[in-house]
Amino acid sequence: MQIAKVRGNVVSTQKEPSLRGTKLLLLQLVDEEGQPLPKYEVAADNVGAGVDEWVLVSCGSAARIVQGNEQRPLDAVVVAIIDSVRIEDRLIYSKKDQYR
Amino acid sequence: MQIAKVRGNVVSTQKEPSLRGTKLLLLQLVDEEGQPLPKYEVAADNVGAGVDEWVLVSCGSAARIVQGNEQRPLDAVVVAIIDSVRIEDRLIYSKKDQYR
Amino acid sequence: MQIAKVRGNVVSTQKEPSLRGTKLLLLQLVDEEGQPLPKYEVAADNVGAGVDEWVLVSCGSAARIVQGNEQRPLDAVVVAIIDSVRIEDRLIYSKKDQYR
Amino acid sequence: MQIAKVRGNVVSTQKEPSLRGTKLLLLQLVDEEGQPLPKYEVAADNVGAGVDEWVLVSCGSAARIVQGNEQRPLDAVVVAIIDSVRIEDRLIYSKKDQYR
Amino acid sequence: MQIAKVRGNVVSTQKEPSLRGTKLLLLQLVDEEGQPLPKYEVAADNVGAGVDEWVLVSCGSAARIVQGNEQRPLDAVVVAIIDSVRIEDRLIYSKKDQYR
Repeated sequence: MQIAKVRGNVVSTQKEPSLRGTKLLLLQLVDEEGQPLPKYEVAADNVGAGVDEWVLVSCGSAARIVQGNEQRPLDAVVVAIIDSVRIEDRLIYSKKDQYR
Repeated sequence: MQIAKVRGNVVSTQKEPSLRGTKLLLLQLVDEEGQPLPKYEVAADNVGAGVDEWVLVSCGSAARIVQGNEQRPLDAVVVAIIDSVRIEDRLIYSKKDQYR
Repeated sequence: MQIAKVRGNVVSTQKEPSLRGTKLLLLQLVDEEGQPLPKYEVAADNVGAGVDEWVLVSCGSAARIVQGNEQRPLDAVVVAIIDSVRIEDRLIYSKKDQYR
Repeated sequence: MQIAKVRGNVVSTQKEPSLRGTKLLLLQLVDEEGQPLPKYEVAADNVGAGVDEWVLVSCGSAARIVQGNEQRPLDAVVVAIIDSVRIEDRLIYSKKDQYR
Repeated sequence: MQIAKVRGNVVSTQKEPSLRGTKLLLLQLVDEEGQPLPKYEVAADNVGAGVDEWVLVSCGSAARIVQGNEQRPLDAVVVAIIDSVRIEDRLIYSKKDQYR
């Protein structure tokens, strides 16, 4: 999984019928220190993530191993809202502190 | 999923028999600000996208989770025509305005 | 799918038994203007592509959604010989003209 | 599979219900000489890897071919703790020596 | 598939139980002219490849379409030992000559 920050969303009315009701977030991928990478992913969200939150995104067929997504042509899904990222003794990110 | 702009199409007569009747679009991938990336994808289209429209493209096995594509050797499919892309408070793209 | 030009082939006698009889082409990927990219793919060919022809290559599990390949450990397959690539009003490639 | 070094972990409470009880490690990918690459992966761990250990990470659908992960939306998993990496006659890494 | 040169191996005792008995090779990917790329893959070997031999490596779910690997969390497998690579009229590699 990659770490990403929720930046916005994508809206579509003319789409695969199976995607009706799917909330699509625009995620900016970040490196392990929290610096933005020049990569984004549009991912389905089932965990209720909001703008600026850090999340974990799963890509590929994993996107369909989520209840309700089995028959949706998705290749990316938000699987978790991150509480904290720790590298050795350093706390890189903490949702509570939002120090970044 | 990635955001892409429809640029053109690819035509083939000698192909896997299962691909008969599949419309193949040439998509230019764009970054989250709408700038063109040096990447393209040839994707099957079932949603009726036209040149210059912004679309969402799903890659990998997702391409076969679309009615009629189950037995086609596809690795990319247009799953939605985009109405709008929003990053925080900014409207990056709006199909109605076509301001980009 | 990506656009590629057939450049040559790869021959192997000591291989997975299921690959017996599989013709393996060496493909040079090209960008959407037909310029060669520093990327290649060795792909199975079931459509009878020849050297210098432009083809579409499907990667990943799509390679096994082709009759006869279901039980072969392939991750790339030629799915079509390209007749033409068109970007907006420009004809980028035409098999008939071979102008490139 | 890629070679990676365990650097830390990611904690989340609000997540896909199926991910409850999954330990998520932050892995830094390394090249074949053990130099850190600017790439990381957040992967599920079922083999009990600890910080600084070198591991093998499998990506994609392989992540779900591990007992207990079948129905989890994972795209990366630690499949082994590495004892040694050898290139021709050179021992690049040995867990016993921890010379790196 | 990609072309790679066998460089060494990776040994692990603490691993997914299903990987017991799997020989893991360290492969250096090469470009279509045989020049080393800054990419490697650790792949399962069922065809008996040795150091310095050129092989074909299949990635992704293809790694599990090999007898005995169906239930192993692998994302890369050696599927063939290469005899020759030919680009148009040039012989890029020949196992017999080992001229490279």
